[in-house]
Amino acid sequence: MMNPTEYLQNWSDRYKDDLLNNIMPFWLKNGWDRLHGGVYTCLNRDGSIMDTTKSVWFQGRFAFTCAYAYNNIQKNNEWLMAAKSTLDFIEQHCFDKDGRMYFSVTADGKPLRKRRYVFSETFAAIAMAEYALATNDKNYAQKAFDLFKDIKRFLETPGILDPKFEQGVDLRGHSIVMILINVASCIRKVYPDAILDEQIKESVYQLRHYFMHPEFSALLETVGPNGEFIDTNLTRTINPGHCIETSWFLMEEAKQKRDAELLKTALTILDWSWDWGWDSTYGGIINFRDCKNLPPQDYSQDMKFWWPQCEAIIANLYAYQATGDMKYLERHKQISEWTYEHFPDTEYDEWFGYLHRDGTVAQPAKGNLYKGPFHVPRMMIISYSLCQEILSNS
Amino acid sequence: MMNPTEYLQNWSDRYKDDLLNNIMPFWLKNGWDRLHGGVYTCLNRDGSIMDTTKSVWFQGRFAFTCAYAYNNIQKNNEWLMAAKSTLDFIEQHCFDKDGRMYFSVTADGKPLRKRRYVFSETFAAIAMAEYALATNDKNYAQKAFDLFKDIKRFLETPGILDPKFEQGVDLRGHSIVMILINVASCIRKVYPDAILDEQIKESVYQLRHYFMHPEFSALLETVGPNGEFIDTNLTRTINPGHCIETSWFLMEEAKQKRDAELLKTALTILDWSWDWGWDSTYGGIINFRDCKNLPPQDYSQDMKFWWPQCEAIIANLYAYQATGDMKYLERHKQISEWTYEHFPDTEYDEWFGYLHRDGTVAQPAKGNLYKGPFHVPRMMIISYSLCQEILSNS
Repeated sequence: MMNPTEYLQNWSDRYKDDLLNNIMPFWLKNGWDRLHGGVYTCLNRDGSIMDTTKSVWFQGRFAFTCAYAYNNIQKNNEWLMAAKSTLDFIEQHCFDKDGRMYFSVTADGKPLRKRRYVFSETFAAIAMAEYALATNDKNYAQKAFDLFKDIKRFLETPGILDPKFEQGVDLRGHSIVMILINVASCIRKVYPDAILDEQIKESVYQLRHYFMHPEFSALLETVGPNGEFIDTNLTRTINPGHCIETSWFLMEEAKQKRDAELLKTALTILDWSWDWGWDSTYGGIINFRDCKNLPPQDYSQDMKFWWPQCEAIIANLYAYQATGDMKYLERHKQISEWTYEHFPDTEYDEWFGYLHRDGTVAQPAKGNLYKGPFHVPRMMIISYSLCQEILSNS
Repeated sequence: MMNPTEYLQNWSDRYKDDLLNNIMPFWLKNGWDRLHGGVYTCLNRDGSIMDTTKSVWFQGRFAFTCAYAYNNIQKNNEWLMAAKSTLDFIEQHCFDKDGRMYFSVTADGKPLRKRRYVFSETFAAIAMAEYALATNDKNYAQKAFDLFKDIKRFLETPGILDPKFEQGVDLRGHSIVMILINVASCIRKVYPDAILDEQIKESVYQLRHYFMHPEFSALLETVGPNGEFIDTNLTRTINPGHCIETSWFLMEEAKQKRDAELLKTALTILDWSWDWGWDSTYGGIINFRDCKNLPPQDYSQDMKFWWPQCEAIIANLYAYQATGDMKYLERHKQISEWTYEHFPDTEYDEWFGYLHRDGTVAQPAKGNLYKGPFHVPRMMIISYSLCQEILSNS
């Protein structure tokens, strides 16, 4: 039998130690571009730069991470400087004339690619909000809120975002619905406004009524306009890590609003998604499943990526905090042990990102346009804070 | 020591037998849509339909395969009917009003998605040409040629195809250059026109001067406007199977034109790409390599897909026919043995498509929007014909 206090104290120490002595130094030393501002994320195993292309998602995510660590772990001035440098790079180089953001730019900020989504904008917005919280600079709170309103305008005005499908093909995606919960929640900390609460309510409504499908015990990634199940490869897809991330966004909100119904929804999503995601053969959370148990068609379907494991660590801690149910602490142990056995690089710093199903490393780079300083440090910061809260209340 | 005559006779028998008794019946029975015309390719291991979405690439590829098998293996009337049914579906449902083709449509032909490339058009064009050859119907030769001219117009007229990157980012891709060799070569059989020969010359020029990089002993997938090497993850990518496919497109042309220099170019590409692609640890042709030996960032980088193996079987047979060098027949044996040991399903018909690096099956479906009746039957038809030619000349 584990002793929860001892167990959580151990993890709390490890999260903080890894963040301070491994993860943050790796990105500040190897990723932060002190010359142009911003961050490089295409780093090889040893931290050397493989590609100077800058991911705009990661400009926002790195600035957020630095400010978030500053707000929750340590008043480290270098982190604040890195956040400011990256926000300056974002404001100077990452917006197109129409107010939308690029997807990738060169080292010195020349636009490379713009995509049909608004995820660059959502990550910039949480960075601005978290930086406003760190500095008490109201300008950044206003910028974050203005960007949120722009995101809504881009999403709601026909013609601004190119549709992926032809006219008449009407699909709803889980990604934007779930990310807007987190964006609204981050901005609300520095800019309380009713439309942010409304956004969260609207997202929760959509999750409950459109994306959660009890007939499959699953939250689906893509559904029809009124949540209809559509029987194609794409629309049968379950992304367990993504759903588990959603579950803790909801638990965070339920905790803040003392909303027992919302907690119940969150736990349902977590339990469903754990059952679909946990690989009882090899361990870890698998990338994709098909809600009818047909073979998923994404090439990476049976791989183990770093971020679903991080989300599962956070979600099970939140669930334990909310319920006191040892089931969640046991699961936290199960996912943490597998994750810490397979992902951290014992020869260099930081974590591998891409493992085969059996836990062997598929390729050892530490970052690319999709992996960088976000899920791993965010997991450590949130999990450290949760451990501290639980310990201080016990 | 192998006896080439006996070896080639064995393979020749196997190609024909597999095509007639396994591959073609599988797709005619399970894929061909006798109700609406055209073909379903999203089939599970046992041939059952997982998704009725129709890939427009595969409407062209299936119609091509049926007519190609008819022209080279057996005057099977069902194949010709399936080709006609699929060409009718293409002409009725797969073209947008602007003359460009969709990427996917519903079972009954409603447009789902249109992409920024012209590969749907290239596969429809080879289908029309091969059907014209099968039936001697000049209308289809004219249609194929007109579609070729449309493809060129789409590619060369600014504003028709949405650019993937921002203004000022000027990249050349290998895919369209190599596929146009095959398209021009197919159409030329039924519609000899100087612009088709010119296309092949132009593509060969680009391969030699832009895409072949002797400093890496590699043909790169993406280069600068004048073939410049660009040091990013994307532009360091080598796709060995794709390059090996290009090599036999060139060997086919070199054979027809008795062009010794072109044969030399083709063999250089084959030898380079074999060295990058052959996995000396587990066997088979690997998906992606990085020309500086950095970790490739595509998630499927170390998987073994069905089609690169098929292309390597064809290319080594062509190279043996052209040179008589036993090295190529040994390599044909090496790739064939690995391929036939791992890909054919021994329980149901057809081949698996997606293996892990070590040759285990990643997921067992027989098709999706990217795998269907093309690379496997084309390999069998070409390889059967090559074996027969070599045997009759020895």
